[in-house]
Amino acid sequence: MQRLHQLLAAIPAPDLSLAQAAQERLDNLTKPRGALGRLEELARELCVMKGGLELTQPKAAVTVFAADHGVTSAGVSLYPREVTAQMVFNFLNGGAGINVLARQAGAAVKVVDVGVDFDFADLPGLVQAKVMPGTANMLEGPAMTREQALEAILAGATVAMGLMDQGMDLLIPGDMGIGNTTASAALTAVFCGLAPALVTGRGTGLDDAGLAAKVAVLEKILTRRHPDPADPLGVLAAVGGLEIAAICGYCLAAAGRRVPVILDGFISTSGALVAARLAPTAAHYFIVGHSSQEQGHRAQCQALGKRPLLDLDLRLGEGTGAALALHLVRSAVAIYNEMATFASAGVTGEPEQR
Amino acid sequence: MQRLHQLLAAIPAPDLSLAQAAQERLDNLTKPRGALGRLEELARELCVMKGGLELTQPKAAVTVFAADHGVTSAGVSLYPREVTAQMVFNFLNGGAGINVLARQAGAAVKVVDVGVDFDFADLPGLVQAKVMPGTANMLEGPAMTREQALEAILAGATVAMGLMDQGMDLLIPGDMGIGNTTASAALTAVFCGLAPALVTGRGTGLDDAGLAAKVAVLEKILTRRHPDPADPLGVLAAVGGLEIAAICGYCLAAAGRRVPVILDGFISTSGALVAARLAPTAAHYFIVGHSSQEQGHRAQCQALGKRPLLDLDLRLGEGTGAALALHLVRSAVAIYNEMATFASAGVTGEPEQR
Repeated sequence: MQRLHQLLAAIPAPDLSLAQAAQERLDNLTKPRGALGRLEELARELCVMKGGLELTQPKAAVTVFAADHGVTSAGVSLYPREVTAQMVFNFLNGGAGINVLARQAGAAVKVVDVGVDFDFADLPGLVQAKVMPGTANMLEGPAMTREQALEAILAGATVAMGLMDQGMDLLIPGDMGIGNTTASAALTAVFCGLAPALVTGRGTGLDDAGLAAKVAVLEKILTRRHPDPADPLGVLAAVGGLEIAAICGYCLAAAGRRVPVILDGFISTSGALVAARLAPTAAHYFIVGHSSQEQGHRAQCQALGKRPLLDLDLRLGEGTGAALALHLVRSAVAIYNEMATFASAGVTGEPEQR
Repeated sequence: MQRLHQLLAAIPAPDLSLAQAAQERLDNLTKPRGALGRLEELARELCVMKGGLELTQPKAAVTVFAADHGVTSAGVSLYPREVTAQMVFNFLNGGAGINVLARQAGAAVKVVDVGVDFDFADLPGLVQAKVMPGTANMLEGPAMTREQALEAILAGATVAMGLMDQGMDLLIPGDMGIGNTTASAALTAVFCGLAPALVTGRGTGLDDAGLAAKVAVLEKILTRRHPDPADPLGVLAAVGGLEIAAICGYCLAAAGRRVPVILDGFISTSGALVAARLAPTAAHYFIVGHSSQEQGHRAQCQALGKRPLLDLDLRLGEGTGAALALHLVRSAVAIYNEMATFASAGVTGEPEQR
């Protein structure tokens, strides 16, 4: 627990006045005031995150945390559990959606096994941080013990620290885990105080009957586990997932070093939500890259006070929506640094209105 | 008129069955069916545009068409008319928003004077295609003659042809012209059959009084000019703009060679709307990159049957929203070409649902 407390205590309170100073700089650029909309908002937010008015193009890394979920035995997903491990090989071979989109956006990809139910031995390229081979079935008991949840959080934090030590200054958490929209829906229901039916979605593509069955499973889980929302670690252990816990730790470690985190969709925002419940200040360092097709994502974003940048009907996870949003972050930095001012370009500035 | 008819006749009817063939290829990639949402849609649309199932990363160019508007003397804009010419210098010096965003997205920028009220002489880098030094004030008479509108259309087409001859295979029209949201609102009102109040916005940032005055000016213009929506060239001449006409020609020429066009916002979509009224097939080659803050843009998109990709509260024009969307087009091509298939990656495909 001491390491967790250190992680939480390290997160700096943001100096929100930097947003205004950044906006003053933006208002001198050759465009009508505010005309670059959310790019200007991003530039302001990045200044607050960085704690200063200098922005540089980020060195970005995506980390895909993979783990299995005991609840898959309740038939909540369209795909079999084996797909989690199969996709780990796909990530390492560079053939998955996130590989392609990270490449296109100029970000490295790292893959971490925090709990896949498969023995990868010493697979080259894979970061080994397995806490256990998948969570327990949360219908029958807690998904993890508190100690296991903590271990997964710290595993995620350690990966983030390593990347930041290598100079990465923008982190994107990705996820892979058949069954993980069920865990995310459970976490969202508990933290946002909403009924499962309001935060449960079709995952990889359930039909109406599949969705109804998933909601029924979630209702049972919440009745049986009945986690206390005031105890975020307890909630995570009871109804979370190992990759979600690792994402939580990854987000906390990034925030601790003023490194922006771009969140993807339902799973990564679940991890960020746990992080923000452990340390509310952490949310200042989060950007929501994409609006998930999973309905529970809206409640998560509201809880975090965030508006997603993109809405492209993606429902893949892996960090794909966040990787696409990285281009917008880069564009915001470029605007902030590279546009001419009214004075330097000899352009007449905005006149006073009546 | 003969050259215009050639432009219109050159536009190939799309083979819509290619969309299904492209989707079959997408469905074999390692992701749940449809999970990449609008990126998949883009890949399908690009295949239809290209007339085949092979996609390559586009060589993209942004062309900023600049012109002045006689209607500025009616006080419809916050900025003085001189800003159009000042911004041309800014574009050529690389300091404007579109320069920065095109650079970030990997697109070249070309600047064309189709009607700026300033003598640039032989300014290096500027494409000289001035039809006249700004439109006439459409409150007092038609903005242009039909001949001038046609000349501006052909100027835009000529620029597009030149770029495509140089190997560019994705074109983005940008715009610069103080007063051009007024012309765009007039065109939209006529083509969509809507009252000016429903399609007029704040432009570069008018307050409520300024907006009301702009609507009143537009009402007068439409009453006095009363253009016939069945005569697109006549509408363009009566209440359009030189840069809007050039954008129309640019879009038509691109469509004629199966080259995708990414539209930006209210002004460029106005030009595309005129193009689609001249040749409805042209709309198949258009992608709407960004949803404008100008309320009339929604009606334009509906008329074209398009859903914008981005909504980042931009209201700058110049092609900025389209340049940002270029990254999404590139990402769609990358996904289509680079992702592993279920078979090649050894991942279990989607099972049948009950």
